[in-house]
Amino acid sequence: MPCLWWPKLAALAPSFLKPSGCFGRGEEMARRIVIIGANAAGVAAASFARRTDRKAEITLIEKDRYPGYSRCGLPFAIAGEIPSLDDLVLFKPEWFKGMRLDLRLETEAKRIDLQSRTVEIEDKSGKKEELSFDSLILCTGARAWMPPIEGRDKKGVFMLRTIDDARAIMEALKDAKKAVVIGAGAIGLEMAAAMREKGLEVTIVELLPHVLPVAVDEDVAKLLQDELEEHGVRLILGKPVKRIIGDEHVKAVEVDGEEIEADLILAATGVRANTELAAEAGLAICPATRAIRTDFRLRCLDGQRHRPVEGVYAAGDCAASIHMVTGLPALSQLGTTAVRMGKVAGINAAGGYATFPGVLGSFVTKVFGLEVGSTGITAEMAKRLGIDVVTGVATHVTKAEYYPGGKHIRVKLVVERATKRIVGGQVVGGEDVTQRINLLALAIQARMTVYDLANIRTAYAPPVADVWEPVVLAADVVARRLG
Amino acid sequence: MPCLWWPKLAALAPSFLKPSGCFGRGEEMARRIVIIGANAAGVAAASFARRTDRKAEITLIEKDRYPGYSRCGLPFAIAGEIPSLDDLVLFKPEWFKGMRLDLRLETEAKRIDLQSRTVEIEDKSGKKEELSFDSLILCTGARAWMPPIEGRDKKGVFMLRTIDDARAIMEALKDAKKAVVIGAGAIGLEMAAAMREKGLEVTIVELLPHVLPVAVDEDVAKLLQDELEEHGVRLILGKPVKRIIGDEHVKAVEVDGEEIEADLILAATGVRANTELAAEAGLAICPATRAIRTDFRLRCLDGQRHRPVEGVYAAGDCAASIHMVTGLPALSQLGTTAVRMGKVAGINAAGGYATFPGVLGSFVTKVFGLEVGSTGITAEMAKRLGIDVVTGVATHVTKAEYYPGGKHIRVKLVVERATKRIVGGQVVGGEDVTQRINLLALAIQARMTVYDLANIRTAYAPPVADVWEPVVLAADVVARRLG
Repeated sequence: MPCLWWPKLAALAPSFLKPSGCFGRGEEMARRIVIIGANAAGVAAASFARRTDRKAEITLIEKDRYPGYSRCGLPFAIAGEIPSLDDLVLFKPEWFKGMRLDLRLETEAKRIDLQSRTVEIEDKSGKKEELSFDSLILCTGARAWMPPIEGRDKKGVFMLRTIDDARAIMEALKDAKKAVVIGAGAIGLEMAAAMREKGLEVTIVELLPHVLPVAVDEDVAKLLQDELEEHGVRLILGKPVKRIIGDEHVKAVEVDGEEIEADLILAATGVRANTELAAEAGLAICPATRAIRTDFRLRCLDGQRHRPVEGVYAAGDCAASIHMVTGLPALSQLGTTAVRMGKVAGINAAGGYATFPGVLGSFVTKVFGLEVGSTGITAEMAKRLGIDVVTGVATHVTKAEYYPGGKHIRVKLVVERATKRIVGGQVVGGEDVTQRINLLALAIQARMTVYDLANIRTAYAPPVADVWEPVVLAADVVARRLG
Repeated sequence: MPCLWWPKLAALAPSFLKPSGCFGRGEEMARRIVIIGANAAGVAAASFARRTDRKAEITLIEKDRYPGYSRCGLPFAIAGEIPSLDDLVLFKPEWFKGMRLDLRLETEAKRIDLQSRTVEIEDKSGKKEELSFDSLILCTGARAWMPPIEGRDKKGVFMLRTIDDARAIMEALKDAKKAVVIGAGAIGLEMAAAMREKGLEVTIVELLPHVLPVAVDEDVAKLLQDELEEHGVRLILGKPVKRIIGDEHVKAVEVDGEEIEADLILAATGVRANTELAAEAGLAICPATRAIRTDFRLRCLDGQRHRPVEGVYAAGDCAASIHMVTGLPALSQLGTTAVRMGKVAGINAAGGYATFPGVLGSFVTKVFGLEVGSTGITAEMAKRLGIDVVTGVATHVTKAEYYPGGKHIRVKLVVERATKRIVGGQVVGGEDVTQRINLLALAIQARMTVYDLANIRTAYAPPVADVWEPVVLAADVVARRLG
């Protein structure tokens, strides 16, 4: 049974572990917390560390010029739905001051010494400094990654990870007419929609057979593909980009013998965790996820014996966790995961107690008029992992049938045959998708069977829902299939 | 511990019960199912009975001229949001024909004889007939009820229950200028909003101290009251209507010494289950709810020994059930409950097996720009019942803070102190309320603690949700209070 749940994980924790604290320093001295990285995870960590220990000295080290901004908002700012990139900066200098956080921007952590418990940092002027810590939180994030496609260094090839990336893309969009997006994950689709809305001709090239290949199954992806095509986006699925053509600047990409003209290429081909600092310090890196290994309190593990290192934590896009359904190492790299991990690491780093029970990959996005989300595992993932599942699909409406303005919605459930438990769900529709994903995440976490789910006491009123809830209808379909 | 859950209920069921079927008739004969009432519960019962037994003879007896219409849509049709009252009729004659259902409109069930297993019916011409049944489902519904206020028989006093009631109100609204709504439950509020949108001066008079007194607590009601007042509805709370003034036609109502002018009065003072037929047949009526008692398969109980009567079921607004949190008799009289009860009764009546685990009162409505919903018990209800609870409130936004168009939303959780379990939730906000109520209903049904709820793996994208989910924030508040 592919389930590794919290109580089991807790049982694995060595009992000799001491609580984190100020080793060898008098109780009267303030706890020194160093956080490397000041975005979603780092800022959440700092915030919860401060709430947990009012007196701690908390220092945030950030390479970038901007701290605490929302990467998830970048495609929507590029689309013009959010007025300005500056709006994405949620945590202003005053916030850091108010929280008494020592924020060091444009400063890089160069080396961690776990013996002396120090971090060597260097600011943009080249000035070096050594910071001592009682607790250290690695929120080193991830970087956009592109496969070694011929011509990838030409002008006009972009990746989207930072505000500066977004600025460069917005500048390039002023003159661009034709764009190719490589990769049909969430960022690829969001950027395709953004550029289409800006009036460009847009083609998406995806190596795998359907869009959102990790998050949803082919039947759900199909609806999204229809939506993209209806909005004039061309899709080339199941084929690799052979090369990027052009002189100094891109002119086209070659796919399956065809040259597709493009003056802008966006490579949305994934991200890689930034683990160099951690690896050099001797911390364990998970080979499955290429991210920093963590335990149930988000403590890093030593690279030799994989035992938790007291007072050293990792959180966010750089930190591996456990998948709540499969029990396998998992790296969700979502904003929601980053802030939750940051919270747990921050509380623990400040002497509190918090645990991180793993990830489900709960995810949602909006592409043109369609919202799509998923949680847990897909049927395709189940097949790859050898998990025997039964699926059920219900298509319904978001308001009472007779109430004007309702939209179609489709719910797909993935149920483990042996246990009848919900292990995954996908929802796609014109509205009200997110909260149904959250409902399904809850059902998975509560280890509910499909029969339990078929019995939820849902609420309804004609302007906001139908009397039959599509999640319940999908559960009924699976229940009938199970007999 | 005030929890009566399904497994316990099941254990109470007498083991000597035989499955329902065609008593004393050859197996080759079709099962005869009679359903009294053809609205939400009756139509759902017929539909699922047909799915369960393709050969059964199914007869529906309906007093009204229209079968299978949505009562919940009536206020929204009066408001003009739904183009026509006819749109509310979801099940047309062709549907009944297609399902091979013998629908008898404008026909009344006069008497049930449980000995001979017959129902005496009379059509509008006065023609009587005796129908034999193997299974009988009572979906006799409820009727609008008004307290004996002096002057309640005057012209211009309306109650809203049927399409004909709605037609009469719509006719009266053509000339009306000033309306008083008595009762601030869902129908009262929906009708107040509808009439205000039609341009009337509207006053709501509620005997209890706040609007939606059964469904939500005062703090949540307050937000709704502000919304009503901002839209020009006058509220008089905590005071009874002393009398209705006028000659033949209403002119005013007297409240607390004040005469409030009105040419239209809507009494939304509740409904009473139609139990006369059941009581005369010797079936048990629950004194707490004044509705027909049912067991876990929605079988009626005999009035003497309260044992299940084989093959006789009740469903919908006339049928009492059990509250999933308190274990007390409960009568939810919601459309969602009616269709679910109808489904269970229909499957059982046709020889299948289905159970009804009780109600939570999951409810939602929309009043002007505000959606409000609740599930489980309120803090006020907990206090009345002697349940020791801790509450927590979080106010947040429905989209990322920087994404334009997000609306405020407030989540209130009610948690049993001894068990830390979620026992109730209330949500009020500009959008996305319904699915959060469903999420909380699931958490209650899964017997989740507030710590479990604080750990849901929620999904997020800037246009559809914030990275911190308000339900989780509210759970964090309660968790902190519990220490």
